[in-house]
Amino acid sequence: MTPDEFVVTPYEVRGRIDYIRLREMFGTQALTNELLARLHSLTGGELSPLLTRGVYFSHRDLGWVLDQFAKNSPFFLYSGRGPSGPLHTSHLVPFELCQWLQQRLGVRMFIQITDDEKFWARPGLSREQTAYWGLENLYDLLALGFDPKRTHVFFDSRSISALYPLAVRVARKVPYSTVKAVFGFKPSTNIGLVFYTALQTVPCFWPSWAEGRSVPCLIPCGIDQDPHFRVTRDLAESLGYPKPALLHSQMIPGLLGDAAMSTTGDREENALFLNDSPKTVEKKVRQAFTGGRTTVEEQRRLGATPEICSVWALWRTRFAKSETEFQEVTRDCRSGALLCGDCKSKVLERVHAFYREHAAAREKVKDWAESTIITAAPKPL
Amino acid sequence: MTPDEFVVTPYEVRGRIDYIRLREMFGTQALTNELLARLHSLTGGELSPLLTRGVYFSHRDLGWVLDQFAKNSPFFLYSGRGPSGPLHTSHLVPFELCQWLQQRLGVRMFIQITDDEKFWARPGLSREQTAYWGLENLYDLLALGFDPKRTHVFFDSRSISALYPLAVRVARKVPYSTVKAVFGFKPSTNIGLVFYTALQTVPCFWPSWAEGRSVPCLIPCGIDQDPHFRVTRDLAESLGYPKPALLHSQMIPGLLGDAAMSTTGDREENALFLNDSPKTVEKKVRQAFTGGRTTVEEQRRLGATPEICSVWALWRTRFAKSETEFQEVTRDCRSGALLCGDCKSKVLERVHAFYREHAAAREKVKDWAESTIITAAPKPL
Repeated sequence: MTPDEFVVTPYEVRGRIDYIRLREMFGTQALTNELLARLHSLTGGELSPLLTRGVYFSHRDLGWVLDQFAKNSPFFLYSGRGPSGPLHTSHLVPFELCQWLQQRLGVRMFIQITDDEKFWARPGLSREQTAYWGLENLYDLLALGFDPKRTHVFFDSRSISALYPLAVRVARKVPYSTVKAVFGFKPSTNIGLVFYTALQTVPCFWPSWAEGRSVPCLIPCGIDQDPHFRVTRDLAESLGYPKPALLHSQMIPGLLGDAAMSTTGDREENALFLNDSPKTVEKKVRQAFTGGRTTVEEQRRLGATPEICSVWALWRTRFAKSETEFQEVTRDCRSGALLCGDCKSKVLERVHAFYREHAAAREKVKDWAESTIITAAPKPL
Repeated sequence: MTPDEFVVTPYEVRGRIDYIRLREMFGTQALTNELLARLHSLTGGELSPLLTRGVYFSHRDLGWVLDQFAKNSPFFLYSGRGPSGPLHTSHLVPFELCQWLQQRLGVRMFIQITDDEKFWARPGLSREQTAYWGLENLYDLLALGFDPKRTHVFFDSRSISALYPLAVRVARKVPYSTVKAVFGFKPSTNIGLVFYTALQTVPCFWPSWAEGRSVPCLIPCGIDQDPHFRVTRDLAESLGYPKPALLHSQMIPGLLGDAAMSTTGDREENALFLNDSPKTVEKKVRQAFTGGRTTVEEQRRLGATPEICSVWALWRTRFAKSETEFQEVTRDCRSGALLCGDCKSKVLERVHAFYREHAAAREKVKDWAESTIITAAPKPL
């Protein structure tokens, strides 16, 4: 692999990703300033830092979703989580954008907790574990500030009655050859995983099905997840539902310098888990890969490279409190004025504060988390 | 295909079947007189005509199930129906044996109505149709005389909450390669059908799972269905459940002389549907293929061949009221004393009477049919 090469699939992310080329390869649209300006005006003059800082950079049909919103046909948001263990901070990226959109636009949020799928995907996990992490993860997600009245959860194993009637219709439209091609399934892949894409598609159509009218859906997700929803988009119209729109984020680099903050393959040090102790957080950030130089002298003289730095990614996605601060950190990093050790100390304060606030918010959602889980189908067929 | 050749798979039955060879090919056991004698003694001196007349001829682990029964660990019965349309008389064969066993031994019966699977398997059927036929078929089955207190129904789309937790565990044990080999799936097969075998396996283990102890299962079915349950048997022990035992029937020949009473491919005349009018029944039986000779004179002289006769199959499976009558019909057919026209007139009286009685019984079960449908899981995982 030359430095120019990269791989982005739902199963693998590696190399230095050229996001413009990737967008062209995937055939998605650029998240233009014009679209951001429309969102800015719809939200009464605000934009999430995840939008202004280029974390979200690509989309499918966002313009249509905003058109519909302007015509009094509001979209709903959909995102999901495969509960294989504790969440790490980059898992929050789609949910933080969802929460931001929900708060500004008053739209509904549907969260899918795929405790069945993770059991099928990870031979080492027990059903007890995926169910346990499903609830733990749900608390973390709801604690981001979702509105209890507008947030609905499909906790797969507990919501199967609500999901199944529509999943049956979806499944008939999906030949094995399609999931084999999109997900790279092998003869040894279990039949649960083969079926799963039907259940993952259901939330995209569920409100339309339940309400008997066309309800637009917007899915913020990492660009690596785009292939999943191409399957959904391809079959939407044949079932009489609108294609879900997508808003794609870049991959969030891991603390070890990986292209993505994945911890698959025992790379725990690559991510900040929400259940990490302050000591562990401190240790991971201190050891984190940066875009710094090999000596202080060199860094003072030549500056560092924020774009490849996992600590800069923390500032960028969450911890810079204002646009001004984010620009300052970026400028001082690049100029050599801010050394990596000091930068890490600064971001650690923010990380510790976030963990404290998050833990408090998390306790509060436990009162109402269960009430968000959908357990009954709106209609029998 | 020479006259000696035959094919028996879950998708195709053709040729003159040599059941002894088939049993050897499938690796199943003969239903011996010794086993029948044990059943005879357990039921207090009775045997179903389906057992005495050789309709059931093969098994897997029946001896073990009877051992367990004798040790106060009664088995339950399991059979299913894919509701693609009205039932015909040969669909009743496994259920009639089940009802007979339930009445004599007081055992539980689990019926699975696979309205999801039939929707996946038959592109021409709507969900409304498979759900409609599911309920209609259930009335017909319960009307055979099942005990409301000991009969439980998995109506897939309505029982999914009860089935899914166990289906999730089963599905992880079944690689795509297995279902591809057993069911002959192609790349174009939809992912619903690929998944389905997990749901078909669940009832075999459900009582063991629900009760946290090993509950033996006995499945009466056509020999063509044996490959389905080989998958189930192969994974049973790895999930901690006993292998289901099987009791195999021969194929019931169709009225048109086909090896099996299948009506797939617009062969309506091949079967007596339970919703056929008396006139239609009369017409189908009058046109039915027999083992008779080309002229009356020849038949009087040489006799007919009951083994290849679809009308003899009616006497054999249901309509001969006693062993004596069955032997008489068989003997008089073979000797030439009973001509096909007269034989058809005699059996038609019985068929008409059965339809009348069945219709009355069917009305009565509607009061309690819904109460047999299991809608909740006994435990969350």
